[in-house]
Amino acid sequence: MYDVLIVGAGPAGLSAALTARQRNLNTVVIYNGQGAMEKAHEIDNYLGLPNINGAELVTIAKKQVEDKGAEIKKGLVQKIMPMDKSFSCLIDNDILEAKSVILCCGTARVKQLENEENLLGQGVSYCATCDGMFYKGREVIVVGAGAEAVEEANYLATLANVKYISEKKHDISELSDTITVIDDKPKAIQKEDGKMQLVCGKDTYNTDGIFVLRPAVALTQLLPEIKTDGGSVAVDKDMATSVAGVFAAGDMVGAPLQVAKAAGEGNIAALSAAKYIKGL
Amino acid sequence: MYDVLIVGAGPAGLSAALTARQRNLNTVVIYNGQGAMEKAHEIDNYLGLPNINGAELVTIAKKQVEDKGAEIKKGLVQKIMPMDKSFSCLIDNDILEAKSVILCCGTARVKQLENEENLLGQGVSYCATCDGMFYKGREVIVVGAGAEAVEEANYLATLANVKYISEKKHDISELSDTITVIDDKPKAIQKEDGKMQLVCGKDTYNTDGIFVLRPAVALTQLLPEIKTDGGSVAVDKDMATSVAGVFAAGDMVGAPLQVAKAAGEGNIAALSAAKYIKGL
Repeated sequence: MYDVLIVGAGPAGLSAALTARQRNLNTVVIYNGQGAMEKAHEIDNYLGLPNINGAELVTIAKKQVEDKGAEIKKGLVQKIMPMDKSFSCLIDNDILEAKSVILCCGTARVKQLENEENLLGQGVSYCATCDGMFYKGREVIVVGAGAEAVEEANYLATLANVKYISEKKHDISELSDTITVIDDKPKAIQKEDGKMQLVCGKDTYNTDGIFVLRPAVALTQLLPEIKTDGGSVAVDKDMATSVAGVFAAGDMVGAPLQVAKAAGEGNIAALSAAKYIKGL
Repeated sequence: MYDVLIVGAGPAGLSAALTARQRNLNTVVIYNGQGAMEKAHEIDNYLGLPNINGAELVTIAKKQVEDKGAEIKKGLVQKIMPMDKSFSCLIDNDILEAKSVILCCGTARVKQLENEENLLGQGVSYCATCDGMFYKGREVIVVGAGAEAVEEANYLATLANVKYISEKKHDISELSDTITVIDDKPKAIQKEDGKMQLVCGKDTYNTDGIFVLRPAVALTQLLPEIKTDGGSVAVDKDMATSVAGVFAAGDMVGAPLQVAKAAGEGNIAALSAAKYIKGL
């Protein structure tokens, strides 16, 4: 049982982890893919580190956080279930338990395909590692939205016949030669007489399973109870969300989208989480 | 005419200056004495700079801010006067004009002596450099509250007969031998038949002038119009105060008293100031 589970390893998440460790909380950070800071060529207004490259700052900060005793793990947080005085967090095919959660997922807003959520676990999967074996020797379509999707599609291609379709533009040059690329735009998923179909702009494609591989899941799937305000997670001045024990910080709670602001909010969120845990 | 005048060179003020320069605003930072960060032995939760010493971080950050083109000046901001679309700021015996102001004065709360404000400029002064010459060969009492007061008292001692009384405990070992130390507690100032008197706990002392030398002035004197909330300056989420064009950040706006939080708020305040100036 962790004290704090932090979703996201950008400036908000890593700053939160640092302060959580300062308060001696048992802390884990889960991240998936690169965030906005890591992609920044140069950050020219972060106090104390003149003109630092975003990826460099991530490297320094991750080491700093690990040196202070927090765990950092790669994985996609798929669902956060509020239990009695704790949260069960589904990360790929693991469950981690934590007393509190700090969401620092950045701006990435996920728009799901029609029926995607209804058919999750019934032919739709978010995790190649977890569910790939079920499709051994069968037909699958990967709906991909980033570099991680390419990597996971290549793994699936060692098991199944894979077709790949891009949900948004990204580099697919590393895709295995055995994968067929579909040049179309995914719209919806449907199940007709037990058979999966991916409905696209130009055509409809039959398959056995559909892997939707994005760097993030939709907030409505992650934690449906949480209140939002104009597309951002609603927080009070202590960075508390509408769900007791869940805090949020960084780009996810709104503009300005800045490293210093995110780090400051992560700091506040961790102190609020510490206070919350003490009160349990 | 500056675009932004920032009061205070702690993490909030310097972070604000950095972002103001990023937005190409003509920026000046005025500071007086050491703030809380500069006195911190070690800061162990500021992202990107593991276990940094507070004074070290101030040195790095000031250089970073100056390299980006902001001016940093030592001085005591005594009064901020809202004019039409600008502010006149009294700094020692200079007036600086700015389109917007960001207050980052830290937690230092000043409790004035009785009558101090009424008699300011009529026998009471806050600035040895400005008013010392008026007391050449006469009697003055310095009410001191920190290292800067000792330095200024020594300057006054080259002109006048100086007595020194501490308002709060500080190192006075560097006081000139020609200065008499009064072992008493200052309470009030009064003017009897044109003669100044400092009323203390044990006794009342006659003099020609009284210099009250603290690292900060009371907020009620600095900018009486500003609204406070439980001892902190009241701000909205854009760090705007109740006075249009005046923003505030850092410890001054409330807990937690943390470097990352202060730097984040300074960043937001500068962006809000930029927006405000654009709208003028």
